[in-house]
Amino acid sequence: MDKKLLVVGAHSADFVWRAGGTIALVTSQGGSATVLALSYGERGESGALWKEPGQTVDNVKRIRHEQASEAAAILGATFSCLDLGDYPLVMTDAALGGLVERFRDLQPDIVITHTPKDPFNPDHPVACQVVQKARLLASGAGVASAFQRIKPPDLYFFEPHQPELCDFEPNTFVDITPVMGQKRQAMAVMTAQGYLQSYYAELASRRGNHARRISGMEEVKFAEALQRTLPLVVKSL
Amino acid sequence: MDKKLLVVGAHSADFVWRAGGTIALVTSQGGSATVLALSYGERGESGALWKEPGQTVDNVKRIRHEQASEAAAILGATFSCLDLGDYPLVMTDAALGGLVERFRDLQPDIVITHTPKDPFNPDHPVACQVVQKARLLASGAGVASAFQRIKPPDLYFFEPHQPELCDFEPNTFVDITPVMGQKRQAMAVMTAQGYLQSYYAELASRRGNHARRISGMEEVKFAEALQRTLPLVVKSL
Amino acid sequence: MDKKLLVVGAHSADFVWRAGGTIALVTSQGGSATVLALSYGERGESGALWKEPGQTVDNVKRIRHEQASEAAAILGATFSCLDLGDYPLVMTDAALGGLVERFRDLQPDIVITHTPKDPFNPDHPVACQVVQKARLLASGAGVASAFQRIKPPDLYFFEPHQPELCDFEPNTFVDITPVMGQKRQAMAVMTAQGYLQSYYAELASRRGNHARRISGMEEVKFAEALQRTLPLVVKSL
Amino acid sequence: MDKKLLVVGAHSADFVWRAGGTIALVTSQGGSATVLALSYGERGESGALWKEPGQTVDNVKRIRHEQASEAAAILGATFSCLDLGDYPLVMTDAALGGLVERFRDLQPDIVITHTPKDPFNPDHPVACQVVQKARLLASGAGVASAFQRIKPPDLYFFEPHQPELCDFEPNTFVDITPVMGQKRQAMAVMTAQGYLQSYYAELASRRGNHARRISGMEEVKFAEALQRTLPLVVKSL
Amino acid sequence: MDKKLLVVGAHSADFVWRAGGTIALVTSQGGSATVLALSYGERGESGALWKEPGQTVDNVKRIRHEQASEAAAILGATFSCLDLGDYPLVMTDAALGGLVERFRDLQPDIVITHTPKDPFNPDHPVACQVVQKARLLASGAGVASAFQRIKPPDLYFFEPHQPELCDFEPNTFVDITPVMGQKRQAMAVMTAQGYLQSYYAELASRRGNHARRISGMEEVKFAEALQRTLPLVVKSL
Amino acid sequence: MDKKLLVVGAHSADFVWRAGGTIALVTSQGGSATVLALSYGERGESGALWKEPGQTVDNVKRIRHEQASEAAAILGATFSCLDLGDYPLVMTDAALGGLVERFRDLQPDIVITHTPKDPFNPDHPVACQVVQKARLLASGAGVASAFQRIKPPDLYFFEPHQPELCDFEPNTFVDITPVMGQKRQAMAVMTAQGYLQSYYAELASRRGNHARRISGMEEVKFAEALQRTLPLVVKSL
Repeated sequence: MDKKLLVVGAHSADFVWRAGGTIALVTSQGGSATVLALSYGERGESGALWKEPGQTVDNVKRIRHEQASEAAAILGATFSCLDLGDYPLVMTDAALGGLVERFRDLQPDIVITHTPKDPFNPDHPVACQVVQKARLLASGAGVASAFQRIKPPDLYFFEPHQPELCDFEPNTFVDITPVMGQKRQAMAVMTAQGYLQSYYAELASRRGNHARRISGMEEVKFAEALQRTLPLVVKSL
Repeated sequence: MDKKLLVVGAHSADFVWRAGGTIALVTSQGGSATVLALSYGERGESGALWKEPGQTVDNVKRIRHEQASEAAAILGATFSCLDLGDYPLVMTDAALGGLVERFRDLQPDIVITHTPKDPFNPDHPVACQVVQKARLLASGAGVASAFQRIKPPDLYFFEPHQPELCDFEPNTFVDITPVMGQKRQAMAVMTAQGYLQSYYAELASRRGNHARRISGMEEVKFAEALQRTLPLVVKSL
Repeated sequence: MDKKLLVVGAHSADFVWRAGGTIALVTSQGGSATVLALSYGERGESGALWKEPGQTVDNVKRIRHEQASEAAAILGATFSCLDLGDYPLVMTDAALGGLVERFRDLQPDIVITHTPKDPFNPDHPVACQVVQKARLLASGAGVASAFQRIKPPDLYFFEPHQPELCDFEPNTFVDITPVMGQKRQAMAVMTAQGYLQSYYAELASRRGNHARRISGMEEVKFAEALQRTLPLVVKSL
Repeated sequence: MDKKLLVVGAHSADFVWRAGGTIALVTSQGGSATVLALSYGERGESGALWKEPGQTVDNVKRIRHEQASEAAAILGATFSCLDLGDYPLVMTDAALGGLVERFRDLQPDIVITHTPKDPFNPDHPVACQVVQKARLLASGAGVASAFQRIKPPDLYFFEPHQPELCDFEPNTFVDITPVMGQKRQAMAVMTAQGYLQSYYAELASRRGNHARRISGMEEVKFAEALQRTLPLVVKSL
Repeated sequence: MDKKLLVVGAHSADFVWRAGGTIALVTSQGGSATVLALSYGERGESGALWKEPGQTVDNVKRIRHEQASEAAAILGATFSCLDLGDYPLVMTDAALGGLVERFRDLQPDIVITHTPKDPFNPDHPVACQVVQKARLLASGAGVASAFQRIKPPDLYFFEPHQPELCDFEPNTFVDITPVMGQKRQAMAVMTAQGYLQSYYAELASRRGNHARRISGMEEVKFAEALQRTLPLVVKSL
Repeated sequence: MDKKLLVVGAHSADFVWRAGGTIALVTSQGGSATVLALSYGERGESGALWKEPGQTVDNVKRIRHEQASEAAAILGATFSCLDLGDYPLVMTDAALGGLVERFRDLQPDIVITHTPKDPFNPDHPVACQVVQKARLLASGAGVASAFQRIKPPDLYFFEPHQPELCDFEPNTFVDITPVMGQKRQAMAVMTAQGYLQSYYAELASRRGNHARRISGMEEVKFAEALQRTLPLVVKSL
């Protein structure tokens, strides 16, 4: 298995909670995984760091970069950040163009990002929209074109914090039982967010329960829920 | 591969047009396939036969049974019919009980049937509803129970004649390119319905085009569209 | 214009409030209109009559029949009632069969009935369901069949009392300005329901306002909103 | 506060997991709560009991009755069961009539039951449908009628096991923090279902987290999610 | 009661028709209300004023400001306008930033604005989008952050002119019976729009009828319909 | 019949495949038709041309202009292009203003454009959005305004390549049987896209089949499916 996975988050820690198990699964099976953050989440999601006296934006970004890189490494992935700013994340035409370049360079088989709707976060829908656009611009309309095209990657949304309010429709459960230890380790890197560590460990257990009930596969203990955006083309049922 | 497929149609010919390729694919890959018709469609869908002078209900059913059996055999499947009557198809509690028994006996891995909505056919939604109920009664609620339970089979809807008006959401395209010849042969058995033969051959080509665009798999020439009703649980992406 | 309109209501007065203008328009343009009530609404919608001391079910039905007949006559239509009982309205197989016969005899071009959902009335959805089924059984699946088939009539839902809660999607506004006088007269026959007379006169004005805004036709003063259930096939735009 | 709450479940234990906190909250605030089970769930949801050698249906029902009564008592509610059978639960006209009588006798202010859709359980949608019908038959159409009418109670759906697959839309979060201890105690009565005890305790914590995020009320630790089915009429915002 | 209400309209008169009663109710109960218009609607909604010979943009704005201020005062609210222009209303990053500041300064408990969709108005969806974004930027993601955050206010949409075409789902009816006189007075200030005065007075009566039917509260004569966008967190049912 | 039709496509060839029959029908019945392309599709949809050695952007545009003009002429329409660039198509405020001017100049009765969603094309939704905005800005809010207003034209979406994935809801079928020859001729001008010629000829036949089944009009052989966006206001049923 040599699939290339690209996970794009609005902020630098999103991938750990929402797709950490899927990333570890892909890399443990011989695939490669790239994490791309559009921002460090330095304004909206780094509250604990800002409680330090004398804290600076540059230092927050540096710490966030280190943590995300360490967590990505635990999952077998590489991490980079476009550092476009958060709250609000604003995507310029140049930023979009840069993202298209990344798609062309990487030629991912699978892309995972945020849901298009999130009534609790102004940056998540922006990330989703720009990823969808970049994917289309990189792969073209399915016909010959004036520019080099990549094969259209599969596109998934990962699970948001409040799934129902984001119209999240989980139609794919990834069995992450074999790599749950790695996900726990990666989450533990985010030392300032102890609550989220237990919240998302428990979510993996709950989604594992759902996956067992749906499939009858008793060995599934932990799962991540994804929303596939396009039909699946299969060679056998 | 040793999966067991069960296709349930309201009338005896439904399976040929809507799932003939999928059936042939499963059996060609080592699986087994059972076709179960709830009725012969002797009233509503056998118009050509009724043009014969002196035609009788019994003779119509006999001919429909022979044709369906022959088409099923071409696809590698067996055919049987509950002969519950059509226009309207009425499901009694006894008929439901009989269907549950079939599920328990066969223990299918995959079940395919009609969509829950069809503004052009009074029997298709009845078939869908009873299949869904029988599936649940045979497999239980996912917990231990007073009766023997089967593993819950995957449930798909096949494509209706006017997909948009039936709220059909094709989320799974089955590549039937390797067995398209068998589907053509099976359709040819339905001698009285020449128009449908070309209609559904063309549909397979159109859905093949869609599948190619979605997946980038250039080798897909023909496909059948299905609607999966429950999330997919996967071991790798 | 010689179209045949059939309006089916769960209770004997439904047609006046919800389709009175459309009925009058059809008949004023040379078409014919038949009103069929499934019940007299003698239990659930005849409260004023039951305040009379010594009131009986038969007398309530007799008065309801007279009023509905008079209102229908004002609109140029005929009225009949299947008298199947209300609260709850229960449709037996025999009653369904009788309704199918009516469809075959009348061969309507257009049928109007209740919405499939109504959280304020237990009988309206039953009426909708049985009308949809009878329409399909009378017209067949669009292919030759063992029984005589009628041309499939257009099917519309009329506006319920609380449109949003019934998922009513008004996609057709009928300009009833030329016949608004007749609708008022027909409503006035329902002497015990003075409030509804002003409620529905006002609704006609409001829907007229909507129709003007949508179409730019300044002459539309009064309208009835309908929900067409199947696509419109047109010879010109 | 003197509101009357009625909780109707398809099986005798449903109320504990899905509405135990809400029941305890109502009774702790001076209201009264009645739990009505349509069946004992003796076939589909009593697996652990059936592992006992020599087990009988009557004994299973007896044990289920005792457990449900004890759990209800802990929550301050009374329990009764219509004993209509499960897997499948079948609602006859007589059973519907009996339920209508219960509504008339009790005159509840609030009713809570299952969602209309549940792809994992054949009985839950039946329960929902019959509760909705009984509510309408007991309260009439909002106009004077031939029979005694009750004030239409508020209607809620409680949270199913897999919310997204049941189209559950949580629009009301009940803060059950003050009575979480009682819910835990009531769940503990269901000795054979240890897994569900932790599953639903955790769900209460998760829904509490959601409620905190939505409202900013930091004191909410545990919540139950409900789906209100009709608009809320308020005297102040 | 000391709640702070903020009503944001695309044009200076929107609040009167759509939320006048709710504003008056809040202020009559001891709360405060602020009306913020993004533009004066000087191009698209001031037609009557432009019929005056020699009319100027500045004069139109002046008159619109006076009328809106007077209407707001009748309702117990204050009025101000960002004067961003209409047809089209364009929200720059600076304008968004200014709106965020207003949210931070005011710290409203409740915000009411337009629906996200309106096929009859190009400015209403822009207003909705910018209000949603400003609310999120002012309140953060529910976690500690680098900037001062306000408690996330409740967010409602008020009723558009053609509710069904705007996908308006009224889930909250505010009983405005006690303040209907104030709403009539405030509407009367809009002297050039006599038709709308009767249109919206009648709408209040119609929504009052709906609210009575839903709740059984016979005293509700007039209501305004709102769409709550997030779940309600309650301490009792 | 003297209706004015305006068809707006993101790229210069869209109109031929998706609305060629409707255009020919309008012009054959005495109406006029204008085709406006927002770009030449020179980057994303001109792959065959780019295979020529030494190809230039200007030459591609010239060829695309000639082909589109020729195809339009066959259909009885005129063609022009705003030449705004594709992949991505970006609409500036100036471009929007220009489009509004076109609407004011032409005063179309009917406008047809792309669906708002298309997961296979980044430019189609942009075109849809700008057409909707221009239509509203040109026609105003239905009230008197400071600028000259046109009567609001009917707005339709034409059929995208993969209808279900674009949430396309075909609610209007145009019988193009009398002009199918012209559509074939116009498609034949697009010499480099032989596959699409047969794909869309077949689609016309399939939609004709659907239209026959829906309406019972046996003479319909070919049809184009459209999605009407606003209710239809009718003078008779």
